[in-house]
Amino acid sequence: MPQRTGRRPGPTDTRDAIVAAARQAFASAGYAGTSLRAVARDAGVDPALVVHFFGSKAGLFTAAVGWPFDAQAEMRAAVADGPAAIGENLARMFLRHWEDEQDRSPLVAVLHVATGEPAGAQLMRAYLTEHLLAPLVAALDADQPELRAGLIAAQIIGLGLTRYVLAHEPLASAPVETVQAILAQAIQRIVDEPLPPV
Amino acid sequence: MPQRTGRRPGPTDTRDAIVAAARQAFASAGYAGTSLRAVARDAGVDPALVVHFFGSKAGLFTAAVGWPFDAQAEMRAAVADGPAAIGENLARMFLRHWEDEQDRSPLVAVLHVATGEPAGAQLMRAYLTEHLLAPLVAALDADQPELRAGLIAAQIIGLGLTRYVLAHEPLASAPVETVQAILAQAIQRIVDEPLPPV
Repeated sequence: MPQRTGRRPGPTDTRDAIVAAARQAFASAGYAGTSLRAVARDAGVDPALVVHFFGSKAGLFTAAVGWPFDAQAEMRAAVADGPAAIGENLARMFLRHWEDEQDRSPLVAVLHVATGEPAGAQLMRAYLTEHLLAPLVAALDADQPELRAGLIAAQIIGLGLTRYVLAHEPLASAPVETVQAILAQAIQRIVDEPLPPV
Repeated sequence: MPQRTGRRPGPTDTRDAIVAAARQAFASAGYAGTSLRAVARDAGVDPALVVHFFGSKAGLFTAAVGWPFDAQAEMRAAVADGPAAIGENLARMFLRHWEDEQDRSPLVAVLHVATGEPAGAQLMRAYLTEHLLAPLVAALDADQPELRAGLIAAQIIGLGLTRYVLAHEPLASAPVETVQAILAQAIQRIVDEPLPPV
């Protein structure tokens, strides 16, 4: 497709430029402080194009914090071996991404936005519930699968934050194999065991 | 002590006014975006007074995110009943504060700052290591007490974020007694059990 002006790049480049501008804007100004108009200006495009590609600020945010990997596809693969392998598979999957600095920064950015304002928390909740955790809930073969999926998310988020963001020692410097074994065991117990009686 | 001017309140009031202004500034502008000068202006005091009370921006931050309760004293009390009661006692202590909206907002603010920039993460790490977790590490009667304390912190942070910040359902609406039983069991296992072999 020919470019219509010297300034405006092709559709894929345009989309990428908008996402890059949005990522920077959300990170520096937060969710509330970022406008579609400002992102469009930073990306050198018309605001209507941002709406065309992403629909809304929420859609733009989802794209901006989109992992550099297909988390839902990986989640589906992680649960495909059956419930007995979920601890191992999920621990390996998430630690591989937390270990990779490029994958880690959007994970941290989303936690930053989620702790900064209700709209950010709402977006992350929707992402978790409707997107990332759905295959896990479907794969669990126990009572209260949605509650268990939330507890598993809490394990992964807590460990990621404490090891990689807070860098609390000696957890931060422990070999990844050690941490993976600990996380796998904690997840597998949530998958397999009765929830504690109240 | 008599007030020297009509405008400037006594030392305790002044300190409180600075902390209140700092809390608001860190919450809205983040760590990097907050200056001692701006906090002083918001509190209606001379910047030199802020330095006098808090030494530096880091010191001001620590005071600003100081819980409305003495977390270290509560931690000491929570571990005083011996290792077998740590799960129960810590789960009860932290959930009481997470449940209380006034206590929760500084907890969330500190996570927001910690995920926003390395200086924020460093401050929270120092707070955890040097202050909050020290009595827990001393009370643990097992190998690798520092690693176990970090894993316990990860449990508490992950559960707090997922239930109270992300408000992931049905975890967010589960009765606090249910969540307390789950958290107590997870913590007690980290206290008591061998770490998994790699």
